[in-house]
Amino acid sequence: MASIKDVAKLAGVGIGTASRVLNNHPNVSDATRTKVLEAIKKLDFVPSEAARNLKLKTSQEVALLIPSTMHPYLSKIAYHVEEELFKYGYKMMLCNNHAHVDKELSYLTMLRRNKIAGIIGITYNDIESFIQADIPMVSIDRNVGASIPCVAADNFEGGRIACRELIAKGCSQLAFLGDLTSTKSEVKQRQKGFVYEASLHGLDVFSFSDIEKEDIHDNFAYIESFLDATTDIDGVFCISDLLAASFIKLARRRGRLVPQDLKVIGFDGIQDTTFFHPVLSTIKQPVDEICRVAVELLIRKMDEPDFTADIIHIPVTYIEGETT
Amino acid sequence: MASIKDVAKLAGVGIGTASRVLNNHPNVSDATRTKVLEAIKKLDFVPSEAARNLKLKTSQEVALLIPSTMHPYLSKIAYHVEEELFKYGYKMMLCNNHAHVDKELSYLTMLRRNKIAGIIGITYNDIESFIQADIPMVSIDRNVGASIPCVAADNFEGGRIACRELIAKGCSQLAFLGDLTSTKSEVKQRQKGFVYEASLHGLDVFSFSDIEKEDIHDNFAYIESFLDATTDIDGVFCISDLLAASFIKLARRRGRLVPQDLKVIGFDGIQDTTFFHPVLSTIKQPVDEICRVAVELLIRKMDEPDFTADIIHIPVTYIEGETT
Repeated sequence: MASIKDVAKLAGVGIGTASRVLNNHPNVSDATRTKVLEAIKKLDFVPSEAARNLKLKTSQEVALLIPSTMHPYLSKIAYHVEEELFKYGYKMMLCNNHAHVDKELSYLTMLRRNKIAGIIGITYNDIESFIQADIPMVSIDRNVGASIPCVAADNFEGGRIACRELIAKGCSQLAFLGDLTSTKSEVKQRQKGFVYEASLHGLDVFSFSDIEKEDIHDNFAYIESFLDATTDIDGVFCISDLLAASFIKLARRRGRLVPQDLKVIGFDGIQDTTFFHPVLSTIKQPVDEICRVAVELLIRKMDEPDFTADIIHIPVTYIEGETT
Repeated sequence: MASIKDVAKLAGVGIGTASRVLNNHPNVSDATRTKVLEAIKKLDFVPSEAARNLKLKTSQEVALLIPSTMHPYLSKIAYHVEEELFKYGYKMMLCNNHAHVDKELSYLTMLRRNKIAGIIGITYNDIESFIQADIPMVSIDRNVGASIPCVAADNFEGGRIACRELIAKGCSQLAFLGDLTSTKSEVKQRQKGFVYEASLHGLDVFSFSDIEKEDIHDNFAYIESFLDATTDIDGVFCISDLLAASFIKLARRRGRLVPQDLKVIGFDGIQDTTFFHPVLSTIKQPVDEICRVAVELLIRKMDEPDFTADIIHIPVTYIEGETT
């Protein structure tokens, strides 16, 4: 009996592409679709989940390791990854790890035992050593290792865009407000891009994440000390929308109004409506495209275990809100 | 070798309770915990996933059928159901069905083939006939059938509370703003509770969901026609927070300000911060408790296939925001 591999071979395309045609995925050219459909007809190929399971010796299930679906950015990731996997006939196991390494490891143990077909992970823990090469994995937002393809928003370019937008609005005293925790994540590139673009304009950036703040343990105190240190700034780029929103609230309490006294740009694009104010000016992450590419990479990695790739960056867009 | 069933029997408790003790679940009395721990010791019981799998002849996996994790209420459901299932050693397969009956049926077919251990569903489709009695299922928010236990927020009481709060704020011209689509869902009880409470105070309610609006296909036009019909109201209860937020925005365009001219209460409690305005006055759904009970019912249903229960209502709370 013909397999999808035979179909792909005859059509001269990858298995991922053949699978997309089978699942009526829109992102296939007409020429490719025709070639695959002809191969299917010629080989009398009948898709069968049972046959595929038997062949792959794994379940038709992919695990999504994610800190928490409570966060709006991450709940969108869960939505789009599930949608993309479904197109390829895969189900998704949702593993909230709450950024706790023990729950994450416990899940990874489960996954090994259950012969999961693959893993898509957003993880901020050091789990490299635990990830077995025999489970295909793709990472989102963090470069975990060379054998694990990674896809992320173009965070560096996002930082550059934010800087240009603030300058275009007349800002010249720039500051970057980062996270409390430092990670190896790609997210760090937002700051680098912002600082780089400012340097091209001959401007310095007051970067708060560089400061020693060992005695600060909550966002509130963190932002307050940032406000203490930045009485003369007029443009702030925040590493996330939620941080931007809390910063704007605390600045207002001190009589520093946004956008009149201070212009603020966030990152993520978590607001789906304009019902709630302030509507943030922000760098929007292309969540749907990130997930589409992540699933595509995973399908390829399942087919070619030795496949490696440099990190893939997906373009971001600037959304003008009420805070610039 | 002793099983958890033996432990439960010796301790004189249900399997669900014994499992909760094993997983250090907080919601167990000290007396019960002691009894179970003594039974475990006496029987030299060692928990084993492999043994349990073999015994149950199913995977240790539960499917969550849910319209979409893009909606903030539903993404919280996904978070808490996963967390509760993990305590019992179960993994969660996330199935966004987008309220499309074909994707839902496709998932149900998959689930049958894969011997899923159980299903927790939030579904607005007519899938009763498709749900096999041999897969234990629990429903959230919708009473699907007598053999399928259901848990929901106390929507009726929520409607009553909203009515009392509006009256306490001086409102006497009340209106209810419902959904465009009618479903068999428990959510309908919000309107019933609101109207019932108003009647106790001798007040009528203008209920918009009763009106013929066959020619209206989007929320925007729907709310505009509601505004046309309700120029003299002073208190509105909206069936959801998102509807309340869009209603407030459109009312403002007509110069009808909230809360000055009109007081508005929503339902759900989707705002986790007070960073974005208006902060809605709302009836908050007890999502964590709904999910805890749903998983508890499912564990019981797995143990006792004939178990039936009347719908379980979880108390709601009123959150005072800026819109009343």
